Amino acid sequence: MSFSPLIRQLIDSLRVLPGVGQKTAQRMALHLLERERPGGLKLAEALEKALHGVGYCKRCRTLSELDECQLCSDPRRDDSLLCVVQSPTDVWAVEQTGFRGRYFVLKGHLSPLDGLGPDAIGIPQLEARISEGQFSEVILATNPTVEGEATAHYIAQLLLPQGLAVSRIAHGVPLGGELELVDGGTLAHALAGRKSMAGH
Amino acid sequence: MSFSPLIRQLIDSLRVLPGVGQKTAQRMALHLLERERPGGLKLAEALEKALHGVGYCKRCRTLSELDECQLCSDPRRDDSLLCVVQSPTDVWAVEQTGFRGRYFVLKGHLSPLDGLGPDAIGIPQLEARISEGQFSEVILATNPTVEGEATAHYIAQLLLPQGLAVSRIAHGVPLGGELELVDGGTLAHALAGRKSMAGH
Ligand SMILES: [Zn+2]
Ligand SMILES: [Zn+2]
Repeated sequence: MSFSPLIRQLIDSLRVLPGVGQKTAQRMALHLLERERPGGLKLAEALEKALHGVGYCKRCRTLSELDECQLCSDPRRDDSLLCVVQSPTDVWAVEQTGFRGRYFVLKGHLSPLDGLGPDAIGIPQLEARISEGQFSEVILATNPTVEGEATAHYIAQLLLPQGLAVSRIAHGVPLGGELELVDGGTLAHALAGRKSMAGH
Repeated sequence: MSFSPLIRQLIDSLRVLPGVGQKTAQRMALHLLERERPGGLKLAEALEKALHGVGYCKRCRTLSELDECQLCSDPRRDDSLLCVVQSPTDVWAVEQTGFRGRYFVLKGHLSPLDGLGPDAIGIPQLEARISEGQFSEVILATNPTVEGEATAHYIAQLLLPQGLAVSRIAHGVPLGGELELVDGGTLAHALAGRKSMAGH
């Protein structure tokens, strides 16, 4: 209809947010304009700073504006455990369970049909990270989906011959779901019940 | 937990959006950082432009970056009908019904307990707008809440002695609700079934 150009652009731009359709975007835009201008300007600034400033931690590959993220540089964490996940969101989810080892974040999962092989998802960097550390166990916490399982298996086959203990989070997590949507209790349980992949 | 400062600030800032809690804000922030950086930067720019550039139309008081909004400056609209609403969102809602007269936007509703009298919600500007126009009817489309009704009655009492035809949208709209949440069909019906307030 009849919003002025700047309001229309704001509404359109808000639709980049996940789960935000036309009607929600309109409500958000008018709410900001009518009641939250200082908060909206802070949001604009935070977006710009984060989107320009945040890159990837050189050790664990999670999102961070620091060369080495706070999780990697924290000396109090357990250097014997490495948890491999497939997105930065999953670091947050595993962190909620009380896990206090180290992380490595893949760029998604293996997807041969899309041309995403080991190099594309960061397997070489994972191997480098493992060889520079002194891990006694590598926990594979990729998503409990077909692709996540396949990725975990691929990594297990790669690491087991090197004499590393490799485990997979237990199937307390519902099959076919996304790790980030699992409640913390279920995930904590799955983590505690992890099984060695040596027998595979 | 353990997001880096820029990510944490982004998550906090996103919570200014209506209906966005901590978990949704996290999902939004990571989505933008992982998959939508160009879209996120466009959003930052659109926010800044709109929040700095958008003011209020000098005629109808709706949100617009133009001195006179597109609804007020459109020569094809019906100059004999004035629809009074209590927020810019409601202009959009009424516009969806196919109404093609003019608008006046109050700043909310009368709320004596909060110290919001006629001056605070823009009644003097409404009177000025009416006296400079040639309206044959003023349609009161404030919310169908107790406060919206009271505000409509106040305005009716003010305008009726001036010989103006004053109508209230019909109570096809559910009592106690917000106008902007009413579906377009119900609102179109309520508008068509408006009743003269002369008898009150
Ligand atoms: Zn790191
Ligand atoms: Zn206007």
